[in-house]
Amino acid sequence: MKRVIKLYDTTLRDGAQTLGISFSVKDKLAITEKLDKLGVHFIEGGWPGSNPKDMEYFNTVKKLKLKNSKIVAFGSTRRTAVKASKDGNLKALLTSGVQHITIFGKSWDLHVHKVLRTTLQENLAMIYDSVSYLKKKESFVFFDAEHFFDGYMANAEYALKTLEVAVEAGADAIVLCDTNGGMLPRWVQNIVSNVKKEFEFELGVHLHNDSGMAVASSIVAVEEGCNHIQGTINGYGERCGNADLCVIIPNIKLKLKLNCIPDKKLKHLTEISHFVSEISNMKQRDNQPYVGAGAFTHKAGIHINAVIKESKTYEHILPELIGNKRELLVSELSGKSSLVVKAQELGHKLIKDKNVTKKLHQLLQDLEHKGYHFEAAKGSFELLLNKHLGKFKKFFILESFRVIVEKEKGEEIVSEATVKLKVNNKSEYTVAEGDGPIDALDSALRKALYPFYPVLSEMSLSDFKVRVLDEKEGTASKVRVLIQFQDKEKSWNTIGVSENIIEASWQALLDGVECKLMKERAKGRI
Amino acid sequence: MKRVIKLYDTTLRDGAQTLGISFSVKDKLAITEKLDKLGVHFIEGGWPGSNPKDMEYFNTVKKLKLKNSKIVAFGSTRRTAVKASKDGNLKALLTSGVQHITIFGKSWDLHVHKVLRTTLQENLAMIYDSVSYLKKKESFVFFDAEHFFDGYMANAEYALKTLEVAVEAGADAIVLCDTNGGMLPRWVQNIVSNVKKEFEFELGVHLHNDSGMAVASSIVAVEEGCNHIQGTINGYGERCGNADLCVIIPNIKLKLKLNCIPDKKLKHLTEISHFVSEISNMKQRDNQPYVGAGAFTHKAGIHINAVIKESKTYEHILPELIGNKRELLVSELSGKSSLVVKAQELGHKLIKDKNVTKKLHQLLQDLEHKGYHFEAAKGSFELLLNKHLGKFKKFFILESFRVIVEKEKGEEIVSEATVKLKVNNKSEYTVAEGDGPIDALDSALRKALYPFYPVLSEMSLSDFKVRVLDEKEGTASKVRVLIQFQDKEKSWNTIGVSENIIEASWQALLDGVECKLMKERAKGRI
Repeated sequence: MKRVIKLYDTTLRDGAQTLGISFSVKDKLAITEKLDKLGVHFIEGGWPGSNPKDMEYFNTVKKLKLKNSKIVAFGSTRRTAVKASKDGNLKALLTSGVQHITIFGKSWDLHVHKVLRTTLQENLAMIYDSVSYLKKKESFVFFDAEHFFDGYMANAEYALKTLEVAVEAGADAIVLCDTNGGMLPRWVQNIVSNVKKEFEFELGVHLHNDSGMAVASSIVAVEEGCNHIQGTINGYGERCGNADLCVIIPNIKLKLKLNCIPDKKLKHLTEISHFVSEISNMKQRDNQPYVGAGAFTHKAGIHINAVIKESKTYEHILPELIGNKRELLVSELSGKSSLVVKAQELGHKLIKDKNVTKKLHQLLQDLEHKGYHFEAAKGSFELLLNKHLGKFKKFFILESFRVIVEKEKGEEIVSEATVKLKVNNKSEYTVAEGDGPIDALDSALRKALYPFYPVLSEMSLSDFKVRVLDEKEGTASKVRVLIQFQDKEKSWNTIGVSENIIEASWQALLDGVECKLMKERAKGRI
Repeated sequence: MKRVIKLYDTTLRDGAQTLGISFSVKDKLAITEKLDKLGVHFIEGGWPGSNPKDMEYFNTVKKLKLKNSKIVAFGSTRRTAVKASKDGNLKALLTSGVQHITIFGKSWDLHVHKVLRTTLQENLAMIYDSVSYLKKKESFVFFDAEHFFDGYMANAEYALKTLEVAVEAGADAIVLCDTNGGMLPRWVQNIVSNVKKEFEFELGVHLHNDSGMAVASSIVAVEEGCNHIQGTINGYGERCGNADLCVIIPNIKLKLKLNCIPDKKLKHLTEISHFVSEISNMKQRDNQPYVGAGAFTHKAGIHINAVIKESKTYEHILPELIGNKRELLVSELSGKSSLVVKAQELGHKLIKDKNVTKKLHQLLQDLEHKGYHFEAAKGSFELLLNKHLGKFKKFFILESFRVIVEKEKGEEIVSEATVKLKVNNKSEYTVAEGDGPIDALDSALRKALYPFYPVLSEMSLSDFKVRVLDEKEGTASKVRVLIQFQDKEKSWNTIGVSENIIEASWQALLDGVECKLMKERAKGRI
């Protein structure tokens, strides 16, 4: 049987320390369910002694029916000169009601002197007392040796002593932490190997990424015999983050050929990574290994041509294995051949050397130069393609629009939009209010078009992004607006670019509506 | 003397393949100057045979007076069945006029068969002919063995043969590429070590990041004896990017204690990383190791307290070494003590347990809950602090504002703003046009205030960012606007949050103006 590496996720605790992340209890429960679905072995839910939100999580999570994961509560050793049984933090851990508990203690003498301000001996007693107290209460106890690697480099004897004490007190697993994240893989390799010589014990690592090595060193630790790896989804965590489980998991399964999550779960990885990034309100890194939206995206013409022939030429694994997919870009750097492929996907046959293709290629280059990015706006690209090929018949003619935003002292701000347009020679002139100028425009536009195209009521806006392009220009900067629309069948993205945010949004709104109408006309519904 | 690792930057060539990056010639020249300032040894400027923009770069870059870096041109081996002297791509390399040339050739038999569709023998001839042709023209030639690691694992004998041929033809250095980026550090270690056994040669690596290992494997390669490392600023590059020089450089200097760039240049690293991210129009990753804005940011109260006592407790290096700095966050997760520290930095003495401090802490928590992020808007935070402590005297009273954006068919879009306010009981009512509604508002506000506060003419807007917070709400989403202002002395950031983008921008504009006025009043200029 393959060796199984146990995964311990701390997105909900260490990940919550990320600059910009703030989880609600509801968020934490939603993430818990996804991690369970992924098949992670342990989910560290929080620090019940540190805040009421975490305690509320532990009270609520009991009601979830988890299939694969155990919930773990995190906390520190007892305070100095306090009995374990009287320590509020340890009590809170037991009150959380979970079976698995992680206790962190100091293993670097510097921390004992400078932060705890106590003696080395008292620190050992704090570790021993806390672990044995929890063991008496029949918990499964992980001992997190905080700063173990730095501690080992400064005073190996004392660092090892802290582990020994935890083991004597009954800890079920020992986790070596690189809390400052400054280790290099070879250092982790040597230290783990030395610890393994001293202890016959279930050993894990918890690594931070301050030297950019958290994933690499975790893999090295597995190679050295650690069977327990801690990390977070997307590598969230304080400063430079924790080890990214979304990268570690496929490296363990596909590269080291060891087990961690079940085979059939691996294809959920990309979806779960994106889900957590969304719920955390963090932009997903396009270039995140394995799961990033651009991890299998090809832009250079030479690569696109090769990948079409044989994916192995520029892809280290099949993207489907982890639920990601290949993307061939429409970009100014890519040649006309990828444009031909792209058009073909949309049902249009372009011939590479024909004039109409060259002109389209030129048009795309010009627009990209102005700040358009069709990579992220396939709806607008499809529309442009149809218009360029003379296959688009107008649904309406726009006459004018106006937006007024007004704020009187002591009153609520008011946004009003008017739209004037013609459908089949019939004029429509509508006005609407909204939550902000763009919402008002959206409402006014729909109000004008509904009588003619009731299918528009099926579509809604699902995403709205604004990016300032030349930020140095201040309020006169060019902005790029990306909007995502959806109906029951699919979603589509559109784009607008202008120095005027209203105009950029308007372009993207119009494209979104025209895409929907074009789709429905093709189906004969209009 | 310390061993020196030569750095080879390919931001301008491989980095330009990044999803979302498109450099102008001007951008490339600006980056070249920064890389030279940093002291990188080689700068790969582009592929002169592939597009006119790259050739223009080579023609222009000659005029720069570079102190430290050599410019390198990149290109492929000759095509199949063509004489080297007749090959357009090789000619273009020579036309570029630079002394240093990188030639890439296939070292994986799969690529020879599937992509080149030629014989293994002809591929060797292509490598030999191309390198020896360029050597005859007195170039310094790097041979990039594309897909070397995959090639070695598939057919070690042939992969090594491609290197041997390049060496025989006179190549000055051999670069082993992990083009697909799928290697693990231990694999790189073993293969580099095997190659070193076969060749006594100047060896380098060029690694991609598809398994998240590019930086780690580069460091491992240095440990195995490679003296030449290729990478890009911020790890830009196709798919998951190239090895990030901003992480590799401090790891080489501060962790391995070897040389690469001169000691005194290291402190420019953060500035250069941010400069390249700005010119590339890419968001800098806050959690980027070493140079990210959040790399030394502390959010948890327990860490903040420890770092104040002793920085080593939660920082692997001193941030100043690479020109970064420590940041203690004002955040809902951090306690009142960090608020006290923060206020102290701004010259206010808060006492932790006083009511005024508790109320301020509560107010900040409420605002952060609504989407404000004072982490990124110290100007607004300072203003809030002064207002809360009763130390702010109003400069003007706002009565109302209105924005109109109008578009008539066939006409340019027009944006107009009116502002009504009172200064010392005197009313001002102004109107202005602008490039978009926010620019118009900015102009109208300044027009109203200039007569009373001419110091405002010293300040300008230097950055403007918009972030949609709850993107799922579509056009009714809440947006967060961050504006950076500057005058001759310093810059300051402000924030606004609203469902209405005009209102959010207006809040940030007002805060920016009030910050400037507050500063000048403190100096007695108002």
